[in-house]
Amino acid sequence: METIKEIVTKEQLGAAWDQAIIGVEKESLRVLEDGSLALTEHPEPLGKRIFHPYIQTDFSESQVELITPPVASVDEVEKWLAALHDVTIRSMKKEEYLWPFSIPAHVPDEKDIPIAKLEKKEDVLYREYLAETYGKKKQLISGIHINLELNPALIQALYEKANTKESLTAFRNQLYVKMSRNFLRYYWLLSYLFGASPIADQQFFDEEQPALKHPVRSIRNSHYGYVNSEEVAVSFDSLEQYVEDIAAMVEKGYLSEEREFYSPIRFRGTTTNQELLEEGISYIELRNLDLNPYDEFGLNEKTIRFIHLFCLYLIWIDEIAEAEERALGKKMNNATALEKPEATSQYLEEGLSLLDGMKEMILQTSHNQQDLQLIASAEETFYHPEKTMAARIIKDIQNNGGYASFGLQLAQQYKKRATEKPYALRGFTNMEMSTQLLLFDALQKGVAVEILDEQEQFLKLTYNGKEEIVKNANMTSKDTYVAPLIMENKTVTKKILAEKGYHVPSGEEYISARTAKEAYWQYQHKAIVVKPKSTNYGIGISIFKQGPALEDYEAAIDFAFKEDNAVLVEEFIEGTEYRLFVINKEVPAVLLRIPANVKGNGKDTIETLVHDKNADPLRGLDHRAPLEKIQLGEIEQLMLKEQGYTTASIPGKDEIVYLRENSNISTGGDSIDQTDEMDESYKKIAVGIAEAVGAEVSGVDLIIPDLRKPSTKEQPGYTVIEANFNPAMHMHAYVTKGKGRRLTLNVLSMLFPELDI
Amino acid sequence: METIKEIVTKEQLGAAWDQAIIGVEKESLRVLEDGSLALTEHPEPLGKRIFHPYIQTDFSESQVELITPPVASVDEVEKWLAALHDVTIRSMKKEEYLWPFSIPAHVPDEKDIPIAKLEKKEDVLYREYLAETYGKKKQLISGIHINLELNPALIQALYEKANTKESLTAFRNQLYVKMSRNFLRYYWLLSYLFGASPIADQQFFDEEQPALKHPVRSIRNSHYGYVNSEEVAVSFDSLEQYVEDIAAMVEKGYLSEEREFYSPIRFRGTTTNQELLEEGISYIELRNLDLNPYDEFGLNEKTIRFIHLFCLYLIWIDEIAEAEERALGKKMNNATALEKPEATSQYLEEGLSLLDGMKEMILQTSHNQQDLQLIASAEETFYHPEKTMAARIIKDIQNNGGYASFGLQLAQQYKKRATEKPYALRGFTNMEMSTQLLLFDALQKGVAVEILDEQEQFLKLTYNGKEEIVKNANMTSKDTYVAPLIMENKTVTKKILAEKGYHVPSGEEYISARTAKEAYWQYQHKAIVVKPKSTNYGIGISIFKQGPALEDYEAAIDFAFKEDNAVLVEEFIEGTEYRLFVINKEVPAVLLRIPANVKGNGKDTIETLVHDKNADPLRGLDHRAPLEKIQLGEIEQLMLKEQGYTTASIPGKDEIVYLRENSNISTGGDSIDQTDEMDESYKKIAVGIAEAVGAEVSGVDLIIPDLRKPSTKEQPGYTVIEANFNPAMHMHAYVTKGKGRRLTLNVLSMLFPELDI
Repeated sequence: METIKEIVTKEQLGAAWDQAIIGVEKESLRVLEDGSLALTEHPEPLGKRIFHPYIQTDFSESQVELITPPVASVDEVEKWLAALHDVTIRSMKKEEYLWPFSIPAHVPDEKDIPIAKLEKKEDVLYREYLAETYGKKKQLISGIHINLELNPALIQALYEKANTKESLTAFRNQLYVKMSRNFLRYYWLLSYLFGASPIADQQFFDEEQPALKHPVRSIRNSHYGYVNSEEVAVSFDSLEQYVEDIAAMVEKGYLSEEREFYSPIRFRGTTTNQELLEEGISYIELRNLDLNPYDEFGLNEKTIRFIHLFCLYLIWIDEIAEAEERALGKKMNNATALEKPEATSQYLEEGLSLLDGMKEMILQTSHNQQDLQLIASAEETFYHPEKTMAARIIKDIQNNGGYASFGLQLAQQYKKRATEKPYALRGFTNMEMSTQLLLFDALQKGVAVEILDEQEQFLKLTYNGKEEIVKNANMTSKDTYVAPLIMENKTVTKKILAEKGYHVPSGEEYISARTAKEAYWQYQHKAIVVKPKSTNYGIGISIFKQGPALEDYEAAIDFAFKEDNAVLVEEFIEGTEYRLFVINKEVPAVLLRIPANVKGNGKDTIETLVHDKNADPLRGLDHRAPLEKIQLGEIEQLMLKEQGYTTASIPGKDEIVYLRENSNISTGGDSIDQTDEMDESYKKIAVGIAEAVGAEVSGVDLIIPDLRKPSTKEQPGYTVIEANFNPAMHMHAYVTKGKGRRLTLNVLSMLFPELDI
Repeated sequence: METIKEIVTKEQLGAAWDQAIIGVEKESLRVLEDGSLALTEHPEPLGKRIFHPYIQTDFSESQVELITPPVASVDEVEKWLAALHDVTIRSMKKEEYLWPFSIPAHVPDEKDIPIAKLEKKEDVLYREYLAETYGKKKQLISGIHINLELNPALIQALYEKANTKESLTAFRNQLYVKMSRNFLRYYWLLSYLFGASPIADQQFFDEEQPALKHPVRSIRNSHYGYVNSEEVAVSFDSLEQYVEDIAAMVEKGYLSEEREFYSPIRFRGTTTNQELLEEGISYIELRNLDLNPYDEFGLNEKTIRFIHLFCLYLIWIDEIAEAEERALGKKMNNATALEKPEATSQYLEEGLSLLDGMKEMILQTSHNQQDLQLIASAEETFYHPEKTMAARIIKDIQNNGGYASFGLQLAQQYKKRATEKPYALRGFTNMEMSTQLLLFDALQKGVAVEILDEQEQFLKLTYNGKEEIVKNANMTSKDTYVAPLIMENKTVTKKILAEKGYHVPSGEEYISARTAKEAYWQYQHKAIVVKPKSTNYGIGISIFKQGPALEDYEAAIDFAFKEDNAVLVEEFIEGTEYRLFVINKEVPAVLLRIPANVKGNGKDTIETLVHDKNADPLRGLDHRAPLEKIQLGEIEQLMLKEQGYTTASIPGKDEIVYLRENSNISTGGDSIDQTDEMDESYKKIAVGIAEAVGAEVSGVDLIIPDLRKPSTKEQPGYTVIEANFNPAMHMHAYVTKGKGRRLTLNVLSMLFPELDI
């Protein structure tokens, strides 16, 4: 029979070999500015833990656990970790931080450690048992679990070539058993490279486990960590033996339940171990990784990738570690974990040999340069133990005022990164801003998210067993197919609204420039707007406030026909235009948009004033921020010139200088929230308009001369300009003036009313 | 006070003056091939008369009445008449025709004339009363009513300039009263020009009204027509007087009810006359127009336009006819109607003077050349009475074998025009074929239709008070916003279908050509399809049935990236592709499409065979017919060459020669209906697929090796290729082989389940 190595190389399975499905669970403690444990409750904005798929608490109420979904690449894991950190940190109180190390700087008294206040009674009881058995201090130790599933296509391919009579499930189990047996033999390597819990507060130790005399590589991975009692003996010889042994341990009372089996590696995929015998192992859980304080998310892509390669190597090699070798491996791991950080590894030779084997595997499969670089770095660490994580930490603690001080510096730095762009969700910044806001809200409230298409802004949201697909954060199953098509067509919209009695500007549609021009005499004395029928964003529109000259009118007609094959000529309505955002038969946001402008102070030039205004972190470029930086391009300079200014002019104190005629946010305009200022009558009208065109979500543009004066049937105080499909949401969330309106929460409420947010 | 003439010229109201809202009601008799009355029931496909807004019966069950909605131009009236004739004639039995004259060629015995079998008891009772009072024969006379509403903007403008203290309603009433009073003075002009009922069967006459000695201009408009008894006297001096008089006539028993008042002009707009006093007149009804046998719809645009100009002239002039003038007018009309057709009008001078006045009006308002031409033609008719309609008819009857024979020749010719392109709906042939089919079905079944946007295929359908907007005949409120967006995105569709357990081709999406090319080794030995992610119609697709050479693969990737910024590489599935049309959770149509081909006969060249196949009336060009003509362009010639043929080759008997590789109907492909042949299991799968992507309407493309062998969970007999939004419907309606499937009826059923079709 061919070995795995032979099959992979012969069948050119390199690419399949290289892929895996990976998920990460990362615990960390909430602490205060002095490094002490935050004794507050789990952050309220994070919704209910009873169903939250991403953000939980582990042992302690202060111990946040972030759970990524299983994803198909290391990059994806990193994205999810980034996003979950943004959500968690922004949901925490101002004075709280996430502690970047596995072991807290200040270990409180046992009695002051709050057990997680979970909804289910049995979850609380289990934690009380753990507190009893291991002590609460031990349970405060945080770490990272990596769930690793081999590429199912790889397993299938290997199975087909292995030419065996056993089932695919049995074959897969064998692969995972082999991986685990060899892992237990060699996992000391990970403790050497990634051990990152070198010291602990004196409080951490006690009579049974007296304080260490010197820093080590990983307290958490040594016998000082929380390990099962000596009686707990579980064989990894086979899945059957593993399941039987754990069951026996539980029966004998050495373990309270299956999940108390604290092995550095475990078989996973079913709710109970017994089910594993039926369905087989779907993935393995690695539990031995300390938090990496140098990475704001506790671990980085390189570490995950190294571990993945290491696990592949464990099935690549021909040998399968027997019981005594695994016992040896455990001893080697404990010894490594307790080595001085700067000391040369006592297993240098084996370490280099393992790395050499991994290199060989890479060369025979993907030949990936980045992977080879990872191996080279690890080798370097063996020759220079001062480059191990633990050694670097010890040095940095000394140089930065001690453990608590260094940890807090890092925590503050990471908190700043997570909060400085509140409108963006790291990991998903390639997506549109509105989608980032919706993603944030979904992750925060515990709605499960699948990114169906990142480029196209397609999300699948799942809550309470109900699935909803969302595109561009507002296109959902709650709206009908035809509603946006109606809104896209200005003529149809106007006809429908007029038939329902809404006040629309009078006007005509023309499908030939000739006919439109022939109708000039109808418009020569009127204020009119000439606009393309279907295009958006104000392109191709001309406004004549006093009745156009013939040549200007004809030019405007030609201009509009460049954008569309149908053109509208409408009466021009004087007044202020407001955007009323309608969703779910309500208007939760009203916005007034004002053209790009600066306010003089009698000292600074327009250029400086623009520069200062642009410094607002909410202003960015190319729709990467909720507001756009004001440009000083041709259009702006021309506008200044018309007012007798240049960019070097110094406007007087409180003088407002406009740099644009149009009020679009995308050309540097200001946004002013007017939701609370506007009379309810207009909101009802906007809701009615959306209903008339059949829309659940619509951005209704109304011209209203006086937003506080109620509109009545006899004296309608408005004219409808447009009902927009796909209305922007981010511009309501972060405004120049007034209160931001989180419309993405309204979208979640519309999709899942039972979420109750 | 200024006169109307003065206001219109001074204020340049020419354009508004020129517009009106016009509706037409046109009666005609169903007859058999011998000209005798068709005694069958109202055609069953035309739905229920109790609510039908367009197609009714008048007095007799054989007397079809077509009713256009009120529309804003003469062109629009013509479109509606065309469409309603197409619908009515195609709904009639093969052996029935619409009689083109006002008076039947063969008047049956009174007892053989069937009274309309209406749902409402009172409608039947009223007809029985009419039969009693006027005789059934008179009631068989058919004609045209024109409803004319002056442009409301014109009335408003006139009102504002008139500077009067009376209400707008009173002002409007006065306009219509003036128009009617003058109409009654001058309507003889219309009888002269358009009188078209010169003769009748002997049976038509009786003792009271003995047979005419010679042909006349209009029996229908003379006292031989159905007119009220002499006692019925109603004044048109004012609206109030009019209402009062009719009420008195009803009270005295001279009229059974208001609608029995058979004046050539009536005030309309409300259900009862009493309401007219409150709400005012909204339009007038002209009842004196005979069917024009020379027009297949009974009247033409020129006639309507002339009548509209005539009515405008009646308010343009300063005079208002008093009672005695109106009595004179009635006499002049009767005299004119009974003149010999070829005789010079006894009112030549007044006729020419009226036409001269109309010409003057046109010159002072629109100066429309076509309108002036109409006046010139009418003048010509006065100098050449042989050019009057009645005179032409008499001549044609003589030259074409008599009244019945001539009428039937016309009827047959008109029936042919209405039926030769069964897939098109005249009046609306600018719209897409599917929309024409839906329009046909809606008009047939009595669903009210408003064309919101002809260019954009937007319809508003109303039935039973419920409105539905439809675009492209399949985009409705029954589908969600997000469903078509999902279907448009092949990656998202595949992900969703795969998650729900449907069998999709394996594959990968690439967003850079580089990455796609790097993955070559995965595909080098496989049958694959390379395709752009979102584009449709097969553009940019390459198929490799045996695993591509590197350079071909790379070229295919570049080719696909030209169409989209994301490209899919999928396994190629062998088998036959079927289109399953899903609507409303059913599959009412399954289609197999076969590439353009001809079948040899051992005699003709390929060129001749193509020519013969293209003669099928279902084949057209540029999507104007359900099937497309086969081209003999470069691609087809190349395809022939590869098979060793030229267009001059003569294929053997029954040999099939393909001219295309692709099976699109749009490139001359054949369509074969397989709805009844396909196993139900596949239809259930297609319904499930549509449900998975959230679609009510979808064109699901499945590859199925054996359509008769059921698909099972263990052995799925299909692979999903695509779920299409906006799936074509017309290609199912008219097929090369098999039964056509009228999917637009399914759309109506989906929108209005209560229609029960």
